[in-house]
Amino acid sequence: MKYGIVIFPSKKLQDYANSFRKRYDPHIALIPPHVTLVNPFELPDEMVKEFIQKLHQVAASIKPFSLEVYKVKTFHPAVNKIYLAIKKTDEILDLHRKLNTDILANNEKTESFVPHITIGQKLSNREHSDIVGQLTMMEVSHSEIVDRFHLLYQLENDQWTTYETFHLGKECQ
Amino acid sequence: MKYGIVIFPSKKLQDYANSFRKRYDPHIALIPPHVTLVNPFELPDEMVKEFIQKLHQVAASIKPFSLEVYKVKTFHPAVNKIYLAIKKTDEILDLHRKLNTDILANNEKTESFVPHITIGQKLSNREHSDIVGQLTMMEVSHSEIVDRFHLLYQLENDQWTTYETFHLGKECQ
Repeated sequence: MKYGIVIFPSKKLQDYANSFRKRYDPHIALIPPHVTLVNPFELPDEMVKEFIQKLHQVAASIKPFSLEVYKVKTFHPAVNKIYLAIKKTDEILDLHRKLNTDILANNEKTESFVPHITIGQKLSNREHSDIVGQLTMMEVSHSEIVDRFHLLYQLENDQWTTYETFHLGKECQ
Repeated sequence: MKYGIVIFPSKKLQDYANSFRKRYDPHIALIPPHVTLVNPFELPDEMVKEFIQKLHQVAASIKPFSLEVYKVKTFHPAVNKIYLAIKKTDEILDLHRKLNTDILANNEKTESFVPHITIGQKLSNREHSDIVGQLTMMEVSHSEIVDRFHLLYQLENDQWTTYETFHLGKECQ
Protein backbone atom coordinates (compact mmCIF):
# COMPACT_ATOMS: atom_id res chain seq x y z
CA MET A 1 0.00 0.00 0.00
CA LYS A 2 0.99 3.59 -0.44
CA TYR A 3 1.46 5.55 2.79
CA GLY A 4 2.20 9.15 3.69
CA ILE A 5 2.93 10.97 6.95
CA VAL A 6 1.45 14.38 7.68
CA ILE A 7 0.62 16.95 10.33
CA PHE A 8 -2.99 18.11 10.30
CA PRO A 9 -2.82 21.63 11.75
CA SER A 10 -5.58 23.13 13.90
CA LYS A 11 -9.12 23.51 12.56
CA LYS A 12 -8.53 27.28 12.41
CA LEU A 13 -5.50 26.91 10.15
CA GLN A 14 -7.17 24.21 8.05
CA ASP A 15 -10.21 26.46 7.53
CA TYR A 16 -7.89 29.29 6.49
CA ALA A 17 -6.07 27.03 4.01
CA ASN A 18 -9.36 25.70 2.62
CA SER A 19 -10.60 29.25 1.97
CA PHE A 20 -7.94 29.32 -0.78
CA ARG A 21 -7.96 25.61 -1.68
CA LYS A 22 -11.66 25.64 -2.61
CA ARG A 23 -10.70 27.92 -5.51
CA TYR A 24 -7.13 26.97 -6.29
CA ASP A 25 -6.46 23.36 -5.24
CA PRO A 26 -8.16 20.46 -7.04
CA HIS A 27 -6.71 18.10 -4.40
CA ILE A 28 -9.05 19.55 -1.77
CA ALA A 29 -11.34 16.54 -2.19
CA LEU A 30 -8.53 14.04 -1.56
CA ILE A 31 -7.20 15.18 1.81
CA PRO A 32 -7.75 17.95 4.38
CA PRO A 33 -5.11 20.71 4.62
CA HIS A 34 -1.83 19.26 5.88
CA VAL A 35 1.93 19.57 6.26
CA THR A 36 3.62 16.64 4.51
CA LEU A 37 6.41 15.13 6.61
CA VAL A 38 7.03 12.08 4.41
CA ASN A 39 6.09 12.01 0.75
CA PRO A 40 4.01 9.06 -0.49
CA PHE A 41 5.94 5.76 -0.24
CA GLU A 42 5.20 2.07 -0.70
CA LEU A 43 5.39 -0.23 2.31
CA PRO A 44 4.78 -3.98 2.10
CA ASP A 45 2.01 -5.21 4.46
CA GLU A 46 4.39 -7.37 6.46
CA MET A 47 6.53 -4.36 7.36
CA VAL A 48 3.74 -2.09 8.60
CA LYS A 49 3.63 -3.30 12.20
CA GLU A 50 7.34 -2.80 12.81
CA PHE A 51 7.25 0.54 10.98
CA ILE A 52 4.48 1.79 13.28
CA GLN A 53 6.50 0.79 16.34
CA LYS A 54 9.35 2.92 15.03
CA LEU A 55 7.01 5.84 14.41
CA HIS A 56 5.83 5.66 18.03
CA GLN A 57 9.46 5.77 19.16
CA VAL A 58 10.16 8.83 17.00
CA ALA A 59 7.00 10.54 18.29
CA ALA A 60 8.00 9.86 21.89
CA SER A 61 11.46 11.31 21.27
CA ILE A 62 10.21 14.74 20.10
CA LYS A 63 8.34 17.19 22.31
CA PRO A 64 5.29 19.14 21.05
CA PHE A 65 6.58 22.15 19.13
CA SER A 66 5.46 25.47 17.74
CA LEU A 67 4.41 25.62 14.08
CA GLU A 68 4.64 29.11 12.65
CA VAL A 69 3.10 30.21 9.36
CA TYR A 70 4.70 33.45 8.21
CA LYS A 71 4.07 34.01 4.49
CA VAL A 72 2.44 32.82 1.28
CA LYS A 73 5.02 31.59 -1.23
CA THR A 74 5.20 29.69 -4.49
CA PHE A 75 7.36 26.86 -5.80
CA HIS A 76 7.23 28.48 -9.26
CA PRO A 77 9.09 28.12 -11.61
CA ALA A 78 9.80 24.53 -10.44
CA VAL A 79 6.06 23.91 -10.17
CA ASN A 80 2.97 26.15 -10.00
CA LYS A 81 2.24 25.37 -6.38
CA ILE A 82 1.32 28.11 -3.88
CA TYR A 83 1.67 27.46 -0.18
CA LEU A 84 1.59 28.77 3.38
CA ALA A 85 5.27 28.79 4.33
CA ILE A 86 6.16 27.37 7.74
CA LYS A 87 9.27 28.40 9.67
CA LYS A 88 12.06 25.84 9.59
CA THR A 89 12.44 25.20 13.29
CA ASP A 90 14.86 22.68 14.76
CA GLU A 91 11.96 20.53 15.90
CA ILE A 92 10.23 20.12 12.54
CA LEU A 93 13.58 19.49 10.84
CA ASP A 94 14.45 16.96 13.52
CA LEU A 95 11.10 15.20 12.99
CA HIS A 96 11.61 15.20 9.21
CA ARG A 97 15.12 13.78 9.55
CA LYS A 98 14.11 11.03 11.96
CA LEU A 99 11.25 9.92 9.72
CA ASN A 100 12.97 10.15 6.35
CA THR A 101 16.66 9.54 7.00
CA ASP A 102 16.66 7.44 10.16
CA ILE A 103 13.62 5.22 9.67
CA LEU A 104 12.90 5.12 5.95
CA ALA A 105 16.42 5.83 4.70
CA ASN A 106 14.89 7.45 1.62
CA ASN A 107 16.34 10.19 -0.55
CA GLU A 108 14.51 13.11 1.05
CA LYS A 109 17.20 15.49 2.27
CA THR A 110 16.19 17.43 5.36
CA GLU A 111 18.41 20.31 4.14
CA SER A 112 16.02 20.75 1.20
CA PHE A 113 12.80 20.23 3.21
CA VAL A 114 10.42 23.19 2.83
CA PRO A 115 7.65 22.74 5.42
CA HIS A 116 4.42 24.07 3.95
CA ILE A 117 0.65 23.80 3.57
CA THR A 118 -0.38 23.77 -0.08
CA ILE A 119 -3.22 26.18 -0.90
CA GLY A 120 -3.04 26.15 -4.71
CA GLN A 121 -1.74 23.68 -7.29
CA LYS A 122 -2.24 22.32 -10.82
CA LEU A 123 -2.55 25.95 -11.91
CA SER A 124 -1.89 27.05 -15.46
CA ASN A 125 0.87 29.65 -15.87
CA ARG A 126 -1.86 32.20 -16.54
CA GLU A 127 -3.86 31.32 -13.41
CA HIS A 128 -0.70 31.17 -11.32
CA SER A 129 0.53 34.59 -12.36
CA ASP A 130 -2.97 36.05 -11.93
CA ILE A 131 -3.20 35.12 -8.27
CA VAL A 132 0.33 34.76 -6.96
CA GLY A 133 1.05 38.47 -6.65
CA GLN A 134 -2.07 39.11 -4.61
CA LEU A 135 -1.59 36.08 -2.33
CA THR A 136 2.12 36.53 -1.65
CA MET A 137 1.51 40.16 -0.63
CA MET A 138 -0.86 39.11 2.16
CA GLU A 139 0.20 39.46 5.77
CA VAL A 140 0.12 36.00 7.28
CA SER A 141 1.10 35.40 10.86
CA HIS A 142 -0.09 32.44 12.87
CA SER A 143 1.47 30.07 15.33
CA GLU A 144 0.16 27.02 17.11
CA ILE A 145 1.40 23.95 18.95
CA VAL A 146 1.80 20.65 17.09
CA ASP A 147 1.41 17.64 19.38
CA ARG A 148 0.76 14.81 16.90
CA PHE A 149 1.26 13.50 13.40
CA HIS A 150 -0.65 10.93 11.35
CA LEU A 151 0.12 7.94 9.16
CA LEU A 152 -2.23 7.84 6.16
CA TYR A 153 -2.75 5.44 3.28
CA GLN A 154 -4.03 6.16 -0.19
CA LEU A 155 -7.13 4.63 -1.75
CA GLU A 156 -7.47 3.71 -5.43
CA ASN A 157 -9.28 6.99 -6.15
CA ASP A 158 -6.26 8.86 -4.67
CA GLN A 159 -8.18 9.86 -1.53
CA TRP A 160 -6.26 9.53 1.77
CA THR A 161 -7.49 7.74 4.92
CA THR A 162 -5.88 8.14 8.35
CA TYR A 163 -4.51 4.89 9.73
CA GLU A 164 -2.98 6.01 13.00
CA THR A 165 -2.14 8.99 15.22
CA PHE A 166 1.26 9.48 16.88
CA HIS A 167 1.56 11.74 19.92
CA LEU A 168 4.72 13.82 20.36
CA GLY A 169 6.52 13.40 23.65
CA LYS A 170 4.36 10.48 24.79
CA GLU A 171 5.19 6.81 25.05
CA CYS A 172 1.56 5.97 24.43
CA GLN A 173 -1.84 7.54 23.74
CA MET B 1 -16.25 22.07 17.38
CA LYS B 2 -18.27 19.38 15.71
CA TYR B 3 -16.95 15.86 16.17
CA GLY B 4 -17.85 12.43 14.86
CA ILE B 5 -16.65 8.89 15.61
CA VAL B 6 -16.18 6.36 12.82
CA ILE B 7 -14.57 3.11 11.80
CA PHE B 8 -12.53 3.33 8.61
CA PRO B 9 -12.69 -0.20 7.19
CA SER B 10 -9.82 -1.82 5.26
CA LYS B 11 -8.49 -0.24 2.07
CA LYS B 12 -10.10 -3.11 0.13
CA LEU B 13 -13.56 -2.38 1.51
CA GLN B 14 -13.09 1.39 1.14
CA ASP B 15 -12.07 0.94 -2.50
CA TYR B 16 -15.16 -1.22 -3.06
CA ALA B 17 -17.41 1.41 -1.46
CA ASN B 18 -15.79 4.21 -3.47
CA SER B 19 -16.44 2.35 -6.72
CA PHE B 20 -20.13 3.18 -6.05
CA ARG B 21 -19.64 6.46 -4.21
CA LYS B 22 -17.82 8.09 -7.13
CA ARG B 23 -21.11 7.87 -9.03
CA TYR B 24 -23.75 7.99 -6.31
CA ASP B 25 -22.41 9.85 -3.26
CA PRO B 26 -21.67 13.59 -3.42
CA HIS B 27 -20.13 13.30 0.08
CA ILE B 28 -17.20 11.33 -1.33
CA ALA B 29 -15.07 14.50 -1.26
CA LEU B 30 -15.78 15.14 2.44
CA ILE B 31 -14.68 11.85 4.03
CA PRO B 32 -13.39 8.42 3.02
CA PRO B 33 -15.78 5.44 3.28
CA HIS B 34 -16.66 4.79 6.92
CA VAL B 35 -19.00 3.24 9.46
CA THR B 36 -20.47 5.97 11.67
CA LEU B 37 -20.44 4.99 15.35
CA VAL B 38 -21.45 8.41 16.72
CA ASN B 39 -23.32 10.95 14.63
CA PRO B 40 -21.92 14.50 14.47
CA PHE B 41 -22.06 16.21 17.88
CA GLU B 42 -20.80 19.44 19.42
CA LEU B 43 -18.18 19.28 22.16
CA PRO B 44 -16.79 22.38 23.91
CA ASP B 45 -12.99 22.66 23.71
CA GLU B 46 -12.56 22.34 27.47
CA MET B 47 -14.25 18.93 27.48
CA VAL B 48 -12.21 17.34 24.70
CA LYS B 49 -9.32 16.09 26.83
CA GLU B 50 -11.52 14.27 29.31
CA PHE B 51 -13.69 12.91 26.50
CA ILE B 52 -10.64 11.43 24.77
CA GLN B 53 -9.59 9.73 28.02
CA LYS B 54 -13.00 8.09 28.16
CA LEU B 55 -12.75 6.99 24.53
CA HIS B 56 -9.43 5.31 25.31
CA GLN B 57 -11.10 3.47 28.19
CA VAL B 58 -13.94 2.30 25.94
CA ALA B 59 -11.47 1.19 23.27
CA ALA B 60 -9.46 -0.78 25.83
CA SER B 61 -12.62 -2.51 27.07
CA ILE B 62 -13.60 -3.98 23.67
CA LYS B 63 -11.56 -6.60 21.80
CA PRO B 64 -10.98 -6.36 18.04
CA PHE B 65 -14.03 -7.81 16.31
CA SER B 66 -15.22 -9.10 12.96
CA LEU B 67 -17.06 -6.69 10.68
CA GLU B 68 -19.22 -8.49 8.15
CA VAL B 69 -20.77 -6.87 5.08
CA TYR B 70 -23.59 -9.05 3.76
CA LYS B 71 -25.89 -7.03 1.49
CA VAL B 72 -26.65 -3.73 -0.23
CA LYS B 73 -29.72 -2.08 1.26
CA THR B 74 -31.52 1.25 1.21
CA PHE B 75 -33.02 3.51 3.86
CA HIS B 76 -35.78 4.43 1.38
CA PRO B 77 -38.54 5.55 1.92
CA ALA B 78 -37.17 7.31 5.05
CA VAL B 79 -34.31 8.70 2.98
CA ASN B 80 -32.77 7.86 -0.43
CA LYS B 81 -29.57 6.48 1.01
CA ILE B 82 -28.06 3.22 -0.25
CA TYR B 83 -25.55 1.35 1.89
CA LEU B 84 -23.46 -1.72 2.49
CA ALA B 85 -25.25 -3.42 5.38
CA ILE B 86 -23.10 -4.69 8.26
CA LYS B 87 -24.15 -7.52 10.55
CA LYS B 88 -25.31 -6.41 13.98
CA THR B 89 -22.84 -8.28 16.12
CA ASP B 90 -22.72 -8.02 19.91
CA GLU B 91 -19.36 -6.25 19.67
CA ILE B 92 -20.39 -3.41 17.36
CA LEU B 93 -23.60 -2.90 19.35
CA ASP B 94 -21.58 -2.90 22.57
CA LEU B 95 -19.22 -0.29 21.12
CA HIS B 96 -22.14 1.84 19.93
CA ARG B 97 -23.82 1.66 23.34
CA LYS B 98 -20.68 2.53 25.28
CA LEU B 99 -20.00 5.55 23.07
CA ASN B 100 -23.52 6.92 22.74
CA THR B 101 -25.34 5.89 25.91
CA ASP B 102 -22.56 5.52 28.47
CA ILE B 103 -20.21 8.36 27.51
CA LEU B 104 -22.25 10.89 25.57
CA ALA B 105 -25.67 10.08 27.04
CA ASN B 106 -27.24 11.20 23.77
CA ASN B 107 -30.50 10.07 22.21
CA GLU B 108 -29.03 7.46 19.85
CA LYS B 109 -30.71 4.18 20.76
CA THR B 110 -28.49 1.17 20.16
CA GLU B 111 -31.65 -0.89 19.44
CA SER B 112 -32.21 1.27 16.35
CA PHE B 113 -28.53 1.40 15.27
CA VAL B 114 -28.08 0.11 11.70
CA PRO B 115 -24.32 -0.31 11.12
CA HIS B 116 -23.56 0.56 7.50
CA ILE B 117 -21.23 2.10 4.93
CA THR B 118 -23.05 4.63 2.76
CA ILE B 119 -22.44 4.17 -0.99
CA GLY B 120 -25.16 6.45 -2.40
CA GLN B 121 -27.06 9.46 -1.05
CA LYS B 122 -28.75 12.74 -2.03
CA LEU B 123 -30.33 10.79 -4.88
CA SER B 124 -33.55 11.92 -6.52
CA ASN B 125 -36.41 9.42 -6.38
CA ARG B 126 -35.80 8.74 -10.06
CA GLU B 127 -32.07 8.08 -9.62
CA HIS B 128 -32.70 6.02 -6.50
CA SER B 129 -35.24 3.75 -8.15
CA ASP B 130 -33.05 3.43 -11.26
CA ILE B 131 -30.10 1.99 -9.37
CA VAL B 132 -31.45 0.43 -6.20
CA GLY B 133 -32.82 -2.71 -7.83
CA GLN B 134 -29.52 -3.50 -9.51
CA LEU B 135 -27.40 -2.79 -6.43
CA THR B 136 -29.52 -4.62 -3.87
CA MET B 137 -29.48 -7.75 -6.07
CA MET B 138 -25.68 -7.94 -5.93
CA GLU B 139 -24.04 -10.70 -3.94
CA VAL B 140 -21.92 -9.01 -1.30
CA SER B 141 -19.93 -11.02 1.18
CA HIS B 142 -16.90 -9.68 2.97
CA SER B 143 -15.56 -9.88 6.47
CA GLU B 144 -12.58 -8.31 8.16
CA ILE B 145 -11.23 -7.51 11.61
CA VAL B 146 -11.80 -4.07 13.12
CA ASP B 147 -9.09 -3.11 15.60
CA ARG B 148 -9.53 0.68 15.85
CA PHE B 149 -11.86 3.62 15.55
CA HIS B 150 -11.25 7.33 14.96
CA LEU B 151 -12.37 10.63 16.41
CA LEU B 152 -12.84 13.20 13.62
CA TYR B 153 -13.76 16.88 13.55
CA GLN B 154 -15.50 18.81 10.82
CA LEU B 155 -14.07 21.80 9.00
CA GLU B 156 -16.08 24.82 7.82
CA ASN B 157 -16.33 23.35 4.31
CA ASP B 158 -17.89 20.18 5.85
CA GLN B 159 -14.75 18.10 5.21
CA TRP B 160 -13.67 15.79 8.07
CA THR B 161 -10.17 15.59 9.57
CA THR B 162 -9.01 12.75 11.83
CA TYR B 163 -8.00 13.92 15.30
CA GLU B 164 -7.12 10.66 17.00
CA THR B 165 -7.02 6.87 16.69
CA PHE B 166 -8.30 4.49 19.39
CA HIS B 167 -7.10 0.89 19.47
CA LEU B 168 -9.50 -1.82 20.56
CA GLY B 169 -8.30 -4.03 23.40
CA LYS B 170 -5.22 -1.93 24.13
CA GLU B 171 -4.50 0.39 27.02
CA CYS B 172 -2.30 2.46 24.77
CA GLN B 173 -0.95 2.67 21.20
